[in-house]
Amino acid sequence: MGRALRHRHPRIVGARLKRLLLTGANGFIGRAVLERLDPERWQVIACSRQPAPAALPACVAEWRSVDLLDPEQACALMSETKASHWLHLAWYTAHGAFWNASQNLDWTVASLLLLKHFAAAGGKHAVMAGTCAEYDWRHGFCREDETPLNPQSLYGTAKDSLRRLAAAWCAGQGIRFAWGRVFSPFGPGEGRQRFIPAVIRAMLAGDAVRCSHGRQYRDFLHVADVANGFKTLLETDASGSFNIASATPRQLRDIVRLLGDITGWRGNPDFGAIPVADDEPPLLIGDNRKLHALGWEPSIELVTGLENAVNGWRDREQAPS
Amino acid sequence: MGRALRHRHPRIVGARLKRLLLTGANGFIGRAVLERLDPERWQVIACSRQPAPAALPACVAEWRSVDLLDPEQACALMSETKASHWLHLAWYTAHGAFWNASQNLDWTVASLLLLKHFAAAGGKHAVMAGTCAEYDWRHGFCREDETPLNPQSLYGTAKDSLRRLAAAWCAGQGIRFAWGRVFSPFGPGEGRQRFIPAVIRAMLAGDAVRCSHGRQYRDFLHVADVANGFKTLLETDASGSFNIASATPRQLRDIVRLLGDITGWRGNPDFGAIPVADDEPPLLIGDNRKLHALGWEPSIELVTGLENAVNGWRDREQAPS
Repeated sequence: MGRALRHRHPRIVGARLKRLLLTGANGFIGRAVLERLDPERWQVIACSRQPAPAALPACVAEWRSVDLLDPEQACALMSETKASHWLHLAWYTAHGAFWNASQNLDWTVASLLLLKHFAAAGGKHAVMAGTCAEYDWRHGFCREDETPLNPQSLYGTAKDSLRRLAAAWCAGQGIRFAWGRVFSPFGPGEGRQRFIPAVIRAMLAGDAVRCSHGRQYRDFLHVADVANGFKTLLETDASGSFNIASATPRQLRDIVRLLGDITGWRGNPDFGAIPVADDEPPLLIGDNRKLHALGWEPSIELVTGLENAVNGWRDREQAPS
Repeated sequence: MGRALRHRHPRIVGARLKRLLLTGANGFIGRAVLERLDPERWQVIACSRQPAPAALPACVAEWRSVDLLDPEQACALMSETKASHWLHLAWYTAHGAFWNASQNLDWTVASLLLLKHFAAAGGKHAVMAGTCAEYDWRHGFCREDETPLNPQSLYGTAKDSLRRLAAAWCAGQGIRFAWGRVFSPFGPGEGRQRFIPAVIRAMLAGDAVRCSHGRQYRDFLHVADVANGFKTLLETDASGSFNIASATPRQLRDIVRLLGDITGWRGNPDFGAIPVADDEPPLLIGDNRKLHALGWEPSIELVTGLENAVNGWRDREQAPS
C-alpha cells in the first residue's frame, strides 16, 4: 500500500503522510471530506457499515466495512489501523427518528469505546462531529464558549455528554480533541427527506410544496464547506469546540423562493401547511469566528450551492432507474 | 428462594416484594444499604466483584460475583436477574487515584450498557450514585436544580455525563431515574486512607496528625444516613437529582479536635503540614431540602457518628491479624 502511494505521488516524503481513520466515510459529510483530503498529506482508512464504493477517492488507502456498534470489530479496527488521527462522523441519522432514538445511547457508548481503543493504539488527535442541538436554542445565536448548552433532544444530549467526557478524558491522555458543531448542512448527497431535498424534489416533480410558516432563520452551509471545516480541525491540530456554520441567517421562505427560481417551478408554496412545535426556535445561527481564526473560509455562495443541489436531484430523478 | 423468604416472613404478599439489583453491594455505601433494606419489602440480588460475604443481610436473596466491566457478564446479569429496581453504586474508587483515572471512562460505558440491558429486561426504576464533584465548586452551597454544574475532575465529568445521558434516555424509555449526589460520607467501613480514618488511625497509634490548614467546611454525613438517602430514592420512586447531604458545614479542624477528644489522643494536630490546591473550595455543602421533602431525615449526630467510627477502628486495630 505504501509502495502504491509512493508510485502515485513520487514526491511524497513518508513522514509527511499522516494516517487518518475516518468513521462514517459513506455518510453525507464523510464523502465530502474524502473528496477534499490531499493524498499527499493524508493516508486515509475509510470505514463504513456499507461496502466500499466502486471508485475510491485518491486519499483512501483502504476501505473497511465495519459495524462500529460491535465492540470487537471496533477494537480490531483501531488496533489494526493504528491511525494518528481520527475523524469520527458515524452516528445514527435516520431522518426525523434520530432526534430521540434509543440508538443515541448505543452510539455514545460505541464512540467512547472507539476513543479508548484509538488511544491504546497510539492515536494522537481525535476530531468528532457535534451538533447545534447541544446549545440552548433560546439563545439563537450560538457562540462556542459563551452560549449555554441545554440540549432538548436525546441526540443533542448524547452528543453533549460524549463531548464532555471525551474532552476531559483526552486531556488526561495527552490526546488533542476537537469537536465540530454542525448546523444545517446541505448539498449533493443530502438525505431525500430533509428540508432542501424535499422541496427540490417536489418542485422538480411539479408537485405542491407544503412548508411550515417558513419564517425561521437557519444556518445553511454547503456540505463542501462543512467538510472543509472538519479538514481544518484535522490539519491545524485544533482542540476545543468549533461551530462549523455559515453565521448567515437565511429564512426558510427565502430558501423555498430561491429554489422555485432555480427549478422554474410555477406554484405558490403552501406556507403554514406543516405545523411547528411551540418551542421551535425563530433563529438558530452559529458564530463561526473560532473556525475562521484557524484559516477556514466558506467557499460556496448559497445560490451556487442551491443550484448545485438542484442539479444533483435533476440528474438523479432523470437517471434511468 | 420465594419459599425460603416466605418461611422467614410469613406475612409477605408476593406482589409487595420488589426485586432490586444492587451493583457495588460490597462497597462502603452498598453494605450500609443492604443492612437497611426491609426483607419484607425488598428481594435483593446483590452484586460485587468480590465473592459474597460469609453472612448475608436478611434482604439478600442472591449474591452474584460479576465483573461489570465485562459487557457479556453485565448483559447476563441484567437478563437473568430481571429486577424492577436497580441501585447502581459500583464505580472505580481507589483513594486519590479515582479523581482522574482513565477508568472513569470505563465505568461510564459500563453503566450505560447496564442501563440498556436493565431496560431490555423490563427494569422500571434506576437509582445511581452521583457526586458533589459535578457542581461548580466556586458556588460552595450546592442546590440540585440551581447551582451550575462544572466538574473539574474526570470523575466529576464522567458522573455528570452519565447522568445527563441516562436521565434523557430513561425519560424516552418510561424508566424512572433518580440520581443521588454524595458529599463526604463517613463511618464504619470507610477506606483507611480517607480523611477521618487516617486521622483516627494516627491518633489510635499515638502518631503525629498531619493535616492541611483545616479551615475548609465540608458536608459530612454518616454512611447509614447516606444509605437511607438511597433507600428513600428507591422507596418513593423518585426521579431527578438529589443531594444526599447533611447541609451542615463542619470545619475539618473541628472534626480533628472532636476525634482527639474521642480517642483521648494528647497531641497537637500539625495543621498546615499538607498543602492544599489553590482551587480547593473553602466551603462545599449540599442543600438537602429536596431529599427531606421525600421524607428522609438524617438520624446520626456527628459526634455519635465519629464515636462509632473510632470504635470501629479500635476494634480492627486491636483484632489479632
